[in-house]
Amino acid sequence: MRDFNFCNPVRVHFGQNAIRHLPAELADYGPNVLLIYGGGSIKKNGIYDAVIKIMGEQKKNVFELSGVMANPRTEKVYEGIEMVRENNIDFMLAVGGGSVIDCTKAISAGSRTDKDFWETFFIGRGECQDALPFGTILTIAATGSEMNSGGVITNWEKKIKTSYGHRRLFPKFSILDPIYTYTLPKNQMIYGAVDILSHIMEAYFSYPDDGNVSDDIAEALTKNVIANLNVALKEPTNYHARANLMWASSLALNGIINIGKEQDWMTHQIEHALSAFYDIPHGAGLAVVHPNYLKYVYGNAPKKFVRYAANVWQIPTAGKTEEKIALEGIGRLQQYFREIGAPTTLAEVNIPAEAIGEIAAGTNLLPGSYHPMTREDVKNVLLLCK
Amino acid sequence: MRDFNFCNPVRVHFGQNAIRHLPAELADYGPNVLLIYGGGSIKKNGIYDAVIKIMGEQKKNVFELSGVMANPRTEKVYEGIEMVRENNIDFMLAVGGGSVIDCTKAISAGSRTDKDFWETFFIGRGECQDALPFGTILTIAATGSEMNSGGVITNWEKKIKTSYGHRRLFPKFSILDPIYTYTLPKNQMIYGAVDILSHIMEAYFSYPDDGNVSDDIAEALTKNVIANLNVALKEPTNYHARANLMWASSLALNGIINIGKEQDWMTHQIEHALSAFYDIPHGAGLAVVHPNYLKYVYGNAPKKFVRYAANVWQIPTAGKTEEKIALEGIGRLQQYFREIGAPTTLAEVNIPAEAIGEIAAGTNLLPGSYHPMTREDVKNVLLLCK
Repeated sequence: MRDFNFCNPVRVHFGQNAIRHLPAELADYGPNVLLIYGGGSIKKNGIYDAVIKIMGEQKKNVFELSGVMANPRTEKVYEGIEMVRENNIDFMLAVGGGSVIDCTKAISAGSRTDKDFWETFFIGRGECQDALPFGTILTIAATGSEMNSGGVITNWEKKIKTSYGHRRLFPKFSILDPIYTYTLPKNQMIYGAVDILSHIMEAYFSYPDDGNVSDDIAEALTKNVIANLNVALKEPTNYHARANLMWASSLALNGIINIGKEQDWMTHQIEHALSAFYDIPHGAGLAVVHPNYLKYVYGNAPKKFVRYAANVWQIPTAGKTEEKIALEGIGRLQQYFREIGAPTTLAEVNIPAEAIGEIAAGTNLLPGSYHPMTREDVKNVLLLCK
Repeated sequence: MRDFNFCNPVRVHFGQNAIRHLPAELADYGPNVLLIYGGGSIKKNGIYDAVIKIMGEQKKNVFELSGVMANPRTEKVYEGIEMVRENNIDFMLAVGGGSVIDCTKAISAGSRTDKDFWETFFIGRGECQDALPFGTILTIAATGSEMNSGGVITNWEKKIKTSYGHRRLFPKFSILDPIYTYTLPKNQMIYGAVDILSHIMEAYFSYPDDGNVSDDIAEALTKNVIANLNVALKEPTNYHARANLMWASSLALNGIINIGKEQDWMTHQIEHALSAFYDIPHGAGLAVVHPNYLKYVYGNAPKKFVRYAANVWQIPTAGKTEEKIALEGIGRLQQYFREIGAPTTLAEVNIPAEAIGEIAAGTNLLPGSYHPMTREDVKNVLLLCK
């Protein structure tokens, strides 16, 4: 187990009608609230009305930043920063999924500095000295942004999608009501689950492999997500399945399973490049890349992949080589993505093979873990994804 | 999954020489620090000297409250409250295990009110309006007190051992260095591991049993503790095993595996009565009571015990009744406690059968979960422990 520092101060209010905790949470802040949301689905399912009613009762002045898109872009962040300054915003409430919450985090950091948020934080990795407080109401189980301090923003002009995190950027609270996810389009539910599974794998498939309890929890979480996604696909209003998926979203990236682990995150970097060039859903890109990434790196840590195949997919191991078991496990993951209707090739998300060179060139290189990744390696992974 | 509210703001610094984070943590507080510790083992293993050196460098005025006993008593809390008031203490540093940390929590709440801490909080369950900040340096993997907001104090005169918890009583930080546990006496390591396993079971063996991810994590954690205790018993200086046990101590009671669960805690209530009357180690009492408690209640939730037997102890289930599998699982747990050298009968901890009535009468009754517990039920459980 590697050394670690851990702190996650987010207050989670979880369950049916958890929005009842919103008034008490809002009481801590000034009157001017910026409500941030996406394409307007919250106006159809009643969440918007419920929030506006509470805001009225709490005598808040509500300003609205709507239209936050999937793969949220710098323009939207600048728009939010401007609104914060013009209206002396005291608090922000993000209502939506990872895109809305990540955009809110960027506004939180960017509105409390005179410097340019993109250059200072996302490119320059500068220290966030101050942050505008915010809370979240989650509407999709996916990114875990509701319970961590990181966010991903896309600079569409420069074709860069990258992340920034800082301990001052934790939500003050997050309201998680599984019922809010009942009306989610099916593909979004699927991509959300792929994102959760991918977050788990970024930690799990990395050194050290010393029997760390984080890996044990990661396997438990993986099996839980698969079991509950299978139920939710058949019964979209199964509360139990939706509740487990929602909490798994937070657990997969609130830091608990990352403890003592090196972590990899190269699959996410490659997916960020796919999205930055082709604006595909994050979960779709991950479904394409992750199994192929694992096929590329497994040879350096075969025992871990044997463990994964046996413990997560119950693949019989007797009489087989480590390589065979490892590849069966990865193959089973890829097959599962196909079964649930996620894409597993670049062709399926309409990315031409000719774009591979450009995407590889645009991928942010991290050290990786099992296999140090060069730009040539990224290209090879993408070739497996064709 | 039941509704829940979750927040755990403790900053954990984990790893070899994690004490290097102490200066930065102390910088946030005033100069007068009360150092709280137990019987002096920290003077033998160098931790005391390391702390005192850092305190000097940070120009802190150090006051000391030493001699905090296992099953810490009200007298020690009063002594600490008095020292805080006399010396205008700004911050407390607890160096030790659960007893030292729990005592510190009681002083934290008790020194910031004019009322009597015992009557107000531990008996009256009053709201903690203010708390003196404190941090911890952990020296034994056991209670999880380093990462939660609860504590247990014994009123020896009244023969009452009971707990109190409040969100203002989280440590500001906890320093977890697995090497600090290398020199722990063997029986303390064993009792600590029993305590960890017991905390997990208080959550796991309770409703709802709906496939909640908390139960999946609980099983992963249980298997990890058993595997690493087995290693640490043979190799007391195995860093990996000690690290897993130490972090498991925190995970078992930092709230993560309690999420969405009713929780039981009746085994802990019965053990508290044992300790209040006979001052036995908490972990020893739990090893005696927990398997017998489970034997008493399993009939109301046999499927959960089948799951436990199969997943934790790999007990073959084919061709057996639920009852047989359940009892084999509980039997395996009890056998494990014997194998590691923990007591499993009242006789082994020198508690006479004649005392059972008195102990049952002195046990705090909670609702339990699988089996609502009357005083007669407690007596019956204790009769199984003879």
